[in-house]
Amino acid sequence: MAPRHDIAHLAHVQLLTPRLDDSVRFFTDFLGLRVVGAEGNQVYLHAWDDYQHHTLTLRGHRHAGIARTHLRTASPESLTRRVAAIEAAGHGRGWVDGEPGFGPTYVFTDPDGHEFGLYYEAEWFESGDAFRPALKNQAAAYPNTGVPARRLDHVNFLGKTPVDNRDFMVEALGAMTTEQILLDDGTVGAAWTTFTNKSYDIVYTRDNLGHSGRLHHIAFAADSRHDILRACDVALDLGVFIETGPHKHAIQQTFFLYLYEPGGNRIELCNAGARLVLAPDWKRVDWSEAERAKGQAWGLRTIESFHTHGTPTAEELASLGQEDGNQD
Amino acid sequence: MAPRHDIAHLAHVQLLTPRLDDSVRFFTDFLGLRVVGAEGNQVYLHAWDDYQHHTLTLRGHRHAGIARTHLRTASPESLTRRVAAIEAAGHGRGWVDGEPGFGPTYVFTDPDGHEFGLYYEAEWFESGDAFRPALKNQAAAYPNTGVPARRLDHVNFLGKTPVDNRDFMVEALGAMTTEQILLDDGTVGAAWTTFTNKSYDIVYTRDNLGHSGRLHHIAFAADSRHDILRACDVALDLGVFIETGPHKHAIQQTFFLYLYEPGGNRIELCNAGARLVLAPDWKRVDWSEAERAKGQAWGLRTIESFHTHGTPTAEELASLGQEDGNQD
Amino acid sequence: MAPRHDIAHLAHVQLLTPRLDDSVRFFTDFLGLRVVGAEGNQVYLHAWDDYQHHTLTLRGHRHAGIARTHLRTASPESLTRRVAAIEAAGHGRGWVDGEPGFGPTYVFTDPDGHEFGLYYEAEWFESGDAFRPALKNQAAAYPNTGVPARRLDHVNFLGKTPVDNRDFMVEALGAMTTEQILLDDGTVGAAWTTFTNKSYDIVYTRDNLGHSGRLHHIAFAADSRHDILRACDVALDLGVFIETGPHKHAIQQTFFLYLYEPGGNRIELCNAGARLVLAPDWKRVDWSEAERAKGQAWGLRTIESFHTHGTPTAEELASLGQEDGNQD
Amino acid sequence: MAPRHDIAHLAHVQLLTPRLDDSVRFFTDFLGLRVVGAEGNQVYLHAWDDYQHHTLTLRGHRHAGIARTHLRTASPESLTRRVAAIEAAGHGRGWVDGEPGFGPTYVFTDPDGHEFGLYYEAEWFESGDAFRPALKNQAAAYPNTGVPARRLDHVNFLGKTPVDNRDFMVEALGAMTTEQILLDDGTVGAAWTTFTNKSYDIVYTRDNLGHSGRLHHIAFAADSRHDILRACDVALDLGVFIETGPHKHAIQQTFFLYLYEPGGNRIELCNAGARLVLAPDWKRVDWSEAERAKGQAWGLRTIESFHTHGTPTAEELASLGQEDGNQD
Repeated sequence: MAPRHDIAHLAHVQLLTPRLDDSVRFFTDFLGLRVVGAEGNQVYLHAWDDYQHHTLTLRGHRHAGIARTHLRTASPESLTRRVAAIEAAGHGRGWVDGEPGFGPTYVFTDPDGHEFGLYYEAEWFESGDAFRPALKNQAAAYPNTGVPARRLDHVNFLGKTPVDNRDFMVEALGAMTTEQILLDDGTVGAAWTTFTNKSYDIVYTRDNLGHSGRLHHIAFAADSRHDILRACDVALDLGVFIETGPHKHAIQQTFFLYLYEPGGNRIELCNAGARLVLAPDWKRVDWSEAERAKGQAWGLRTIESFHTHGTPTAEELASLGQEDGNQD
Repeated sequence: MAPRHDIAHLAHVQLLTPRLDDSVRFFTDFLGLRVVGAEGNQVYLHAWDDYQHHTLTLRGHRHAGIARTHLRTASPESLTRRVAAIEAAGHGRGWVDGEPGFGPTYVFTDPDGHEFGLYYEAEWFESGDAFRPALKNQAAAYPNTGVPARRLDHVNFLGKTPVDNRDFMVEALGAMTTEQILLDDGTVGAAWTTFTNKSYDIVYTRDNLGHSGRLHHIAFAADSRHDILRACDVALDLGVFIETGPHKHAIQQTFFLYLYEPGGNRIELCNAGARLVLAPDWKRVDWSEAERAKGQAWGLRTIESFHTHGTPTAEELASLGQEDGNQD
Repeated sequence: MAPRHDIAHLAHVQLLTPRLDDSVRFFTDFLGLRVVGAEGNQVYLHAWDDYQHHTLTLRGHRHAGIARTHLRTASPESLTRRVAAIEAAGHGRGWVDGEPGFGPTYVFTDPDGHEFGLYYEAEWFESGDAFRPALKNQAAAYPNTGVPARRLDHVNFLGKTPVDNRDFMVEALGAMTTEQILLDDGTVGAAWTTFTNKSYDIVYTRDNLGHSGRLHHIAFAADSRHDILRACDVALDLGVFIETGPHKHAIQQTFFLYLYEPGGNRIELCNAGARLVLAPDWKRVDWSEAERAKGQAWGLRTIESFHTHGTPTAEELASLGQEDGNQD
Repeated sequence: MAPRHDIAHLAHVQLLTPRLDDSVRFFTDFLGLRVVGAEGNQVYLHAWDDYQHHTLTLRGHRHAGIARTHLRTASPESLTRRVAAIEAAGHGRGWVDGEPGFGPTYVFTDPDGHEFGLYYEAEWFESGDAFRPALKNQAAAYPNTGVPARRLDHVNFLGKTPVDNRDFMVEALGAMTTEQILLDDGTVGAAWTTFTNKSYDIVYTRDNLGHSGRLHHIAFAADSRHDILRACDVALDLGVFIETGPHKHAIQQTFFLYLYEPGGNRIELCNAGARLVLAPDWKRVDWSEAERAKGQAWGLRTIESFHTHGTPTAEELASLGQEDGNQD
């Protein structure tokens, strides 16, 4: 099993959207991210607390979904160690240039086929005059528009066999599983894993439509539950689609709001900041189907679309003649 | 003494500023008001919960300060009754056309010389497409910029003799005094009066510099204490000057933040919404100097400028060769 | 039509419960009210911002429901005027002694049969040492237990014909209707009326089970939306039943949480404080069935029990052999 | 230099108080901690999110101050490594039995003489029926009394030479310095160090009175800024002394409230949860005297007592005939 702490944190993701301009508007106007660069059909966005160049890459594409998810290692040596482990596990793809602001990146996939990138070298974000903060211990000025989101918080992947992906995260990358859903048939319905003191960074959820490689959601951290309530008011008048929430999950106790960005990807606003997993020997919490049947923490019933909607959507996959959501 | 309820509520104010463009930017970018009209050196601004055309008129002027404060009556008959009482008290000036959106307005002054306007007829705000709200029981869309302020909340006037102005509000207009500062020499240092279930609408504070007609501050209501904390973060990175706060006043228990807009006028963000005065026979609360010496509710010391800064400023008055702050 | 402002505000209610001790515990431990007296099977409870003796009377009874709802008039003359109007409308019952702390009370019913009491004379609350507040402009010390609720906010009555009850409130008592549900058949499904600058005090909702005299809920005001979120966390670990919420109503834009107290009555925690109706000529907002079909403000579907549960419950009425919920 | 991550987190502290019963009441009634054990003159207290047996030991003593601060290592091997490093640095004292719930503990001091304990073995907290939580991923039921504090957040030690203590934390224990005050004479006025993704766990501040071994404050984490505002309201009516705040520090951007518990120790309530230090190569932020002169983030002036009050107090030290604050 990999040592913990070789992976420093979840860093940045590439999101696919068939409506690039509208998606950019969602992430800037509503979430308060800022465009810090663009090339070709890609736009790079920065959240105000990001110490690195960007946290989100939006890429115009035939369908919605997630492309590559990037993790930063704790050191050059950590990077070497993890690449060796990934290659030994047979999931490596090879080195590529990093995105703007990021150094050499090792590409690999999880067992379900979602693409990842691993890197250590990174430039620190320079705000310039446009976003210069008043306080020197802050990456960029606090936005006066939108939520605003502080940082990318986690990614929840749909996939065929969560337990395999969970084990890959633990064994090859050094993640720790903090909570999971243990179905009555003994299989794992979903697993929450972390590299940090956050209680989760990467989540795997069983794809009820049976596909591989799809995305359930990516989540951005808001500063407080109040900011998420305010986001609801803003969403209502901006015409942003709210799928469900605000409410509190029993699992991980995250205060959540689920939205769809115009490209169709589900985006969560979450407030998980107050809860930290500090125990080095954390005892994994397993939730049974009976426990899940109680609904969310304060009683909200989980709505049907939450169990089925993912990106690419079933419609997009059908139109593409594909069976899985890996980037075509 | 006037019957209560002839005055429906504090409605809109005219603020003078020597830096009109900067002041407009403060009220739109930071407070979240919207420009709904302009003519000559006047700009009209609307807060999202205002049912009327505007709540603030910014007028470019040689100095800062407040010009006319408008009160809406409960009915045409109320208007007739109040005009008669004001004229009987010798403070009437006569009828003028209302500002855009407002009907015939009767102009008068308080004993200290601050100008007021009284009217009944008013158009209801039409959001148009630009600010159309999602919910039909809301005047305009919730702004995605700034605090945002919900409405004008109160005006705090500086003046020579608060008790005379307090009595005029009570006797001629039907206000109720809810709290006051009773100095050791038996005089009234400040008085808070209300026309509504809000615990105050109009406040008179002794001018420690001895002038007449000056403004201590106008206040806008934020929806919650949290919104005021967030306003601090926004102010810091917008470069808005914070004089003092956030903290909670012992008097009226208002959660407050005091700022200077670029023209020099003190602006308060307050959260007084939760507290209502429902008792028809409210027992006025008198605060002694000893009680005031304890500082604000949670112990903050009142800073010196709070006792001296008003608009026009002493410097402005000196350069104008004037002794009082009434509009020249 | 009655002049507005003869009724000062909604004052105190009598709630029936078949589990008196458990109900007292709910209102003290969870809502933060304090027991300030008891006699026979009645317990009197005070909320920390109540200027009067109590805001809630809990009465042990064979079934749940609401007994008498009390309104305070603005003056002795107001009381005389309203009694005359009620008698003229044929709904008067006569004078009784007030509850402890309250003067002579005129009892009447609304057209649906819910009992009301009208009074002017009232003692002001004396905190004594036990609940003495630090600030003299506060009725009692801020509780260190439970939500805590600031005051009784509104009552929502179930009844056969909301429009008749609405009209009685307007014509006999001087209420103003601020919002209502206008069904496709032209009847009124529910109506929100107010005596104050709060946007509603008394609500009438059609009883879908066809009974008279039942209660939909009584509501207590929390200071902020955040306090309501915190109440959810507290409710979860105290074992308080959450029916639905937290979420925001489209109608009146109230942030809500619905709970059942142990006796079976539905209790709402609401945050309506920031929104005030200041316009003397408020334009009533009518909501159509199509608009209602959109769900609550942020999309939550209204759950079935919200349309059927009331007190006395259908089961209680059946066991009593009664058809309506008026106190037996 | 020590590898990072051998220390898992700050775990529990011993606080000395000359008024044990009053101090226990402060931490239970106001902070919402729970007494989970006592022996002799020691009382053990648990915060609702603590996975271990307790987070605070209150010990009756002749004077106020801090006794031993405990850190948990990430593994038995980490413990062995750190003990060797501490002994090599000449600061070791030897092994003792742990407090109830904690295994063998290695005692050492920092260069300034503050006592520390290092351990790995720990029992997990068992709530029993009294504090059983509704959600299985929570240590104990959410308290219905007080703030409530979620966990111990950090310790701020006063000492003669912050830089030496900072270096000891870094070199012997693997801490990372995230921010510091760099005085004009080139010395370090204060240093913030962390073992986790929290931006600080252990802080050293120069003792302006020139003593060794004193405590500036210990801090408990509240869930949100709102909870800290609410704590102010509770403190006011419980008679808890507020020294300064609520406000936001420029350094670390912590939203703070400083209180004195009845024994005289300064206690901070902080909300640092939203901010995480994820960068493995964090660039230390140095604050100059000129930058510090601007006051706190939103402009509050730092009050005098914040620069002088520590425990033991100067008066306590004088009465004891001591020059430093290490436990006598």
